[in-house]
Amino acid sequence: MTADRHSDPLLDPLFTSDAAADAFSPTARLQGMLDFEAALARAEAAVGVIPAHAVPAIGAACKADLYDLGALGAEAALAGNTAIPMVKHLTRTVKAADEESSRYVHWGATSQDAMDSGLMLQLRRFLDGLDADLAALADGLADLADRHRATPMVARTWLQHALPTTFGLKAAGWLDALGRDRQRIAAARTRLALQFGGAAGTLAALGDAGPAVAEALARELDLPLPALPWHASRDRITELASSLGILAGTLGTLGRDISLMMQMEVAEAFEPSGPGRGGSSTMPHKRNPVSCAVLLSTAIRAPALVGGLLAAQVQEHERGLGGWHAEWQALPDLCRLVAGAARHARETIAGLTVDAERMRANLDLTRGLILAEAVTMALGDRMGRMAAHSRVADASRRAAEAARPLRDLLAEDAEVVRALGMDGLDRLFDPLRYTGAASHFIDRVLALHRHQRRQQN
Amino acid sequence: MTADRHSDPLLDPLFTSDAAADAFSPTARLQGMLDFEAALARAEAAVGVIPAHAVPAIGAACKADLYDLGALGAEAALAGNTAIPMVKHLTRTVKAADEESSRYVHWGATSQDAMDSGLMLQLRRFLDGLDADLAALADGLADLADRHRATPMVARTWLQHALPTTFGLKAAGWLDALGRDRQRIAAARTRLALQFGGAAGTLAALGDAGPAVAEALARELDLPLPALPWHASRDRITELASSLGILAGTLGTLGRDISLMMQMEVAEAFEPSGPGRGGSSTMPHKRNPVSCAVLLSTAIRAPALVGGLLAAQVQEHERGLGGWHAEWQALPDLCRLVAGAARHARETIAGLTVDAERMRANLDLTRGLILAEAVTMALGDRMGRMAAHSRVADASRRAAEAARPLRDLLAEDAEVVRALGMDGLDRLFDPLRYTGAASHFIDRVLALHRHQRRQQN
Amino acid sequence: MTADRHSDPLLDPLFTSDAAADAFSPTARLQGMLDFEAALARAEAAVGVIPAHAVPAIGAACKADLYDLGALGAEAALAGNTAIPMVKHLTRTVKAADEESSRYVHWGATSQDAMDSGLMLQLRRFLDGLDADLAALADGLADLADRHRATPMVARTWLQHALPTTFGLKAAGWLDALGRDRQRIAAARTRLALQFGGAAGTLAALGDAGPAVAEALARELDLPLPALPWHASRDRITELASSLGILAGTLGTLGRDISLMMQMEVAEAFEPSGPGRGGSSTMPHKRNPVSCAVLLSTAIRAPALVGGLLAAQVQEHERGLGGWHAEWQALPDLCRLVAGAARHARETIAGLTVDAERMRANLDLTRGLILAEAVTMALGDRMGRMAAHSRVADASRRAAEAARPLRDLLAEDAEVVRALGMDGLDRLFDPLRYTGAASHFIDRVLALHRHQRRQQN
Amino acid sequence: MTADRHSDPLLDPLFTSDAAADAFSPTARLQGMLDFEAALARAEAAVGVIPAHAVPAIGAACKADLYDLGALGAEAALAGNTAIPMVKHLTRTVKAADEESSRYVHWGATSQDAMDSGLMLQLRRFLDGLDADLAALADGLADLADRHRATPMVARTWLQHALPTTFGLKAAGWLDALGRDRQRIAAARTRLALQFGGAAGTLAALGDAGPAVAEALARELDLPLPALPWHASRDRITELASSLGILAGTLGTLGRDISLMMQMEVAEAFEPSGPGRGGSSTMPHKRNPVSCAVLLSTAIRAPALVGGLLAAQVQEHERGLGGWHAEWQALPDLCRLVAGAARHARETIAGLTVDAERMRANLDLTRGLILAEAVTMALGDRMGRMAAHSRVADASRRAAEAARPLRDLLAEDAEVVRALGMDGLDRLFDPLRYTGAASHFIDRVLALHRHQRRQQN
Repeated sequence: MTADRHSDPLLDPLFTSDAAADAFSPTARLQGMLDFEAALARAEAAVGVIPAHAVPAIGAACKADLYDLGALGAEAALAGNTAIPMVKHLTRTVKAADEESSRYVHWGATSQDAMDSGLMLQLRRFLDGLDADLAALADGLADLADRHRATPMVARTWLQHALPTTFGLKAAGWLDALGRDRQRIAAARTRLALQFGGAAGTLAALGDAGPAVAEALARELDLPLPALPWHASRDRITELASSLGILAGTLGTLGRDISLMMQMEVAEAFEPSGPGRGGSSTMPHKRNPVSCAVLLSTAIRAPALVGGLLAAQVQEHERGLGGWHAEWQALPDLCRLVAGAARHARETIAGLTVDAERMRANLDLTRGLILAEAVTMALGDRMGRMAAHSRVADASRRAAEAARPLRDLLAEDAEVVRALGMDGLDRLFDPLRYTGAASHFIDRVLALHRHQRRQQN
Repeated sequence: MTADRHSDPLLDPLFTSDAAADAFSPTARLQGMLDFEAALARAEAAVGVIPAHAVPAIGAACKADLYDLGALGAEAALAGNTAIPMVKHLTRTVKAADEESSRYVHWGATSQDAMDSGLMLQLRRFLDGLDADLAALADGLADLADRHRATPMVARTWLQHALPTTFGLKAAGWLDALGRDRQRIAAARTRLALQFGGAAGTLAALGDAGPAVAEALARELDLPLPALPWHASRDRITELASSLGILAGTLGTLGRDISLMMQMEVAEAFEPSGPGRGGSSTMPHKRNPVSCAVLLSTAIRAPALVGGLLAAQVQEHERGLGGWHAEWQALPDLCRLVAGAARHARETIAGLTVDAERMRANLDLTRGLILAEAVTMALGDRMGRMAAHSRVADASRRAAEAARPLRDLLAEDAEVVRALGMDGLDRLFDPLRYTGAASHFIDRVLALHRHQRRQQN
Repeated sequence: MTADRHSDPLLDPLFTSDAAADAFSPTARLQGMLDFEAALARAEAAVGVIPAHAVPAIGAACKADLYDLGALGAEAALAGNTAIPMVKHLTRTVKAADEESSRYVHWGATSQDAMDSGLMLQLRRFLDGLDADLAALADGLADLADRHRATPMVARTWLQHALPTTFGLKAAGWLDALGRDRQRIAAARTRLALQFGGAAGTLAALGDAGPAVAEALARELDLPLPALPWHASRDRITELASSLGILAGTLGTLGRDISLMMQMEVAEAFEPSGPGRGGSSTMPHKRNPVSCAVLLSTAIRAPALVGGLLAAQVQEHERGLGGWHAEWQALPDLCRLVAGAARHARETIAGLTVDAERMRANLDLTRGLILAEAVTMALGDRMGRMAAHSRVADASRRAAEAARPLRDLLAEDAEVVRALGMDGLDRLFDPLRYTGAASHFIDRVLALHRHQRRQQN
Repeated sequence: MTADRHSDPLLDPLFTSDAAADAFSPTARLQGMLDFEAALARAEAAVGVIPAHAVPAIGAACKADLYDLGALGAEAALAGNTAIPMVKHLTRTVKAADEESSRYVHWGATSQDAMDSGLMLQLRRFLDGLDADLAALADGLADLADRHRATPMVARTWLQHALPTTFGLKAAGWLDALGRDRQRIAAARTRLALQFGGAAGTLAALGDAGPAVAEALARELDLPLPALPWHASRDRITELASSLGILAGTLGTLGRDISLMMQMEVAEAFEPSGPGRGGSSTMPHKRNPVSCAVLLSTAIRAPALVGGLLAAQVQEHERGLGGWHAEWQALPDLCRLVAGAARHARETIAGLTVDAERMRANLDLTRGLILAEAVTMALGDRMGRMAAHSRVADASRRAAEAARPLRDLLAEDAEVVRALGMDGLDRLFDPLRYTGAASHFIDRVLALHRHQRRQQN
């Protein structure tokens, strides 16, 4: 943990994860740039562009804790970016130890090379932490999907009771989306490449050695070597941002569903509780859905942050004005928030309290109306869909008005009884018998999940 | 072309492409749903869920021009979506021809199945048209990159002159980003899958036949079969939207660069002109960058539309309230705009006027300051980077103040001449000699482009 | 009603109002520009800049139905805006009737003058329609607030039961926000000013007569005369857009609350129903919250549209490239959507079904826990807040575990009974006695509402 | 200055102002809540709800530096907001000094009361700092407008030369928009009201004393008393956010224009320079437009932040889940950024270098084409607008092809010479004679500015 893990000590612990906080602390930003500078010296020495003796001298100075963040920030406020003062201070530090080596600091590179490549290193670290939470979340969801494949509950569409489903299928739906999210993030990660182009993207300062240095540098940093420098082509950034924004939507959906199920009147599932968690300052009986709040707030904020990064994508000529600046805080902010949501989702799913009895009880709230489709379909086999539809619709309306079970009204309809039989009618009102392919769908998702797990190991 | 190609006859011709307009006209929306219904009947008959004789009767009624869009829209305003009246009118039409078959219309499906699957069909058509424009644009950029690999021009960073580059490298940069855009869109396309889950995503109304019908339906529509219905998991939509938003940024960057080069004071490259194109109503001498205006306006609008779709991703329970509705117009709007930008980019690149002489002339505007880095690096080899830097910086300042060529001031500095020689100094001021790895980078991008072309054929 | 009221005949009837559709139809856009041209001729003739005889000739040609929208759109696609072909066609039409007068068409103006001023006229018409709906909505909310000031219901915070409130106070909260919304929209309206600057914002083509023509033109169009032309200063547009976006949030909040109250498990209030309204294609018993869907979807889409318009605000120099274009469809889209939400809100509130009994019953779901604060405060008067808090919290926990009424557990606590008395304890569990200043707050809001009504009449 | 002024020490000094950093530091957030708690105690004692002796004990503990931000943040991560641990720690601190008084901490209030009212205090402080910068910026712009009212320059539309204007008019345009921005922000400020409603917005815990306490509390904090608590009605927040977002657009426009004028090829105006300001790490001759970068980056980020806050506006029931959370960091982020832009704009305008000679020289770049409209209008008086238009357009085309002055070609056209005379033709090519009402418009804007200044003093 770095000393300055949390930029906002009051709120970051709620809204982010430790791993993301560490990856994007001011110290980590500086260290990312310094790691680039040290690797650059090694790569250039290996190719013979700078003398070998400069490598240890430069490397020794590439430690973030040697520098005063406040001083760097004050100079960056005039210089317009953080790499300019970083190079100045780094050069000064190297010079104090070895004047000759200090000539080779940042050789042939430009500010944006250090800042973008440093960012790539930060993002890689961040993504490792994020995927650990997502993998655990996926396992938790797979477990829920499997365990609750025969737990019937109300399927709700447009916030209204629709039909029976199972809680396992609901969990499988979340898991299925999460699987695609992880694929997209992994794809975006493969495109996070070395940035190294020198002042104008031509590596002209390195003469003929540019490509060789770039290759060596990519190896040193273990970053993909791009076809060419991408100073003004920010699609790599916006692709990652978009994939995180989409993940935020997936996690927000999970948070919305759980918060709706936690409503007192629904009471089907609950976030884990614990000391100090979700209490209210004035309502002693209340347990607040704290994690859902974070999931939802992230799902509100992330789209805007993604939109802002997309808007920043138009960057002029070889290196743009303003658009690049707009990324510097917005992308880390987005990463931090999404990591926080992933952590909360993982914790919520790991400790979710499921009330299967209440799920079953809520199915009866409409006195059988929720199975009207089942009856309609069964009747439809005999009398055609539209006729069955209007017959059941009529009975449903009367059932609702009289607050009587739909089954009872249908049992009074001779034609219905003739078509279905009394036993058939009763079977139609068992929700467990009307969950269709739910289990089949769960199996398909679990198979995909196992496949994804194997690929990662 | 459909009669109602352009929703907004005054502005759509400017802002979209014909192919996109056709893919997203009201008629096309209706036809998408009807194609779903016809395919559903075929699939269900094949599996034995409905009688074979219903197929031709339903199929014959699945033609958009049989229906009154205004009447459907008026009913949709009450029903809350377009599929409900579509099913009603379709059933009525089938019934008029064959009452028995009309019972099997929309069998076991839900509104969202028809709307989402219809949308998938529209998107596929749209993507075909879009990729045709993008492929042609890529070819145009590859041609520019190759032809102008030795056309020197100013590289500009932060809107200031930085160093020499080549126009070929600039075009290669656009092409490189476009290549990734096309990969992302292609990846998103593979995830545009059949939607078929019935009222609650369980296909319960089909009894045990659900999976078999789903498989047959996916085949009929030539759409991927998803692991499970995805009514409330909208990441497929937002992934496509994001990939289009990122493309809009790439195209906007191209538009920004060209519009900056078209400035009277820069005058390096120009949109194609033609009768009625870009004239001003009051300034007879003016040629407006009309295509750049569209590229930039799309790059402004697309991020917001993507952000809105991401925000819509949180959809409650089995089918959400409001979020889904928020997609209906926003996604087609985004598609139409991005297609328009792609068309304008293609036309602009195909007809781009490049003034290589002016590019060369602009390199001299700073009287050699633009090659200060070249001198600094060469001097740095002898006297160390920081020393060289301050020496050249000093000469540069004096050159700027006296409005004299930097070369002349350096030629008066004995130490510089000793280090570099007079000939060496002159060579350093030839911009063609200071474009580093530009040609190497162009080759790498062109190789990738050829690879991408081969893969598509 | 114009023939082309609905750009999107399938969806616009759901998502907008007739008044907004009419204000922003393609025909209305054209007519707005033509109204500008006709008024310009009148103003210039009045000031003596053009001959009086040109006025009737030009005026007669300024009728939108004389022109072919498709032809204008096709030319606008090349010219880059709609005013260029409009002026061309208008001039041709005038010329056919009176060649001499045709010389004075669009005299001294620029495309953007016609387009922006035409837009102002469209916006004014749109705002009239919008405010009619908002005024009716406000009256409906005032009526609800007053009628239900003694209708107790659960106050929910973080989607959890908190304390009792009244439905009247909830309605008053919506009304209070709506009052500010209307103030903001009215303020934004006062800044929707004439656009008239000629090609570069100097009115140079009019010689010394520029200001006099501008003044006369503002009078003719009944638009405020700005201090100077505002071609590149788009804050007037973004202010209106923002005020509409904020209104969308207010209406979305109303829609969210009602949709939550409509949940089967809550069942406290319902959108009006009617034939064809909100039925489901497969679930005969279901009544969909159609208006809430529109309110929520608008609240999702509007922020993105506002964000896009704000992003478009950076417009270069005297008239910008791309930013202005980005407004042309986005602002009408936003207006249309918000008008639709206002209409749905008005209809929903006018026909809202309120189930006061169910509201009362839901208060008992926590077996008195909802009044824990009341007891805590009353006890706090005797034993201090923290002590009371922990005592009641303990009883609450036990009540929840045992599924017993909190009152009963407290009645078993001798210290509590000593402090409050048995009667006092019972009174504390009457929700009607614990709604604090609810009625006072309602009165304040109703007074503001009456004040606002008087100001408008 | 607080010790933790900058959350992000590397970047905040560039992107914000000291005043805004101080207003939104973690310490300031805590102090805002504590100021609320101290004032609440005073108000409740004044009304007689709590004993007078509690006031000094509570007041003494309401100092932010008594508390450990990290500990509060860690507890907030479990509790879900910062007020819950704040109240706990505050109560503990009071208790250590005076147990009896500690019972009255936070009496009758809820977390959101403290957090929202504390935020109001922070916003007021922020707005004071912001308006100081805006007032100075306005004065600087007024000075530019006045001084440069006769400095002719190119008016550019769609990034193309259009007509002459004056730099004074350009500055007046910026000033005019800024004046409206300040009005909007001032209007939004008047609606930043006390938040005080207790757990459910009814102040029930205060019995009958709620309204009296609220009134006293509003007086204590010098905040407007709202009609009712507004926990779930966030339009006050989004109005302020919108007004800041619009200001960001105004400032971004200024930054865009200046950065375009700073282009080497244009070279008409320049940001102030100074030691360490805008240097490039590898290009010794370069002066980067650092302030413009910040203005543009803020104009990119602000719309997205506003959009996110608008999206957060839908907050459920009496206090929402997630939406409120989404404001906590986003609003301060927006405020900080906009304050930074205001500071940079102020500094840029105060130190702007204007090259009037170059402005004049750029007017000649088109060899007189820029005055084609002047000639067209003058000719139009004689031969009608369309005829004059086509005659001048033809000459313009030939002038451009032959690279000859338009004046010379027109001088060869006997009909033109007959209509205008040789002297008349020459006068038409003096740009100073074709700036129309520019000076008149400047006077109008300066009068408004003086009026606004007087109102504020």
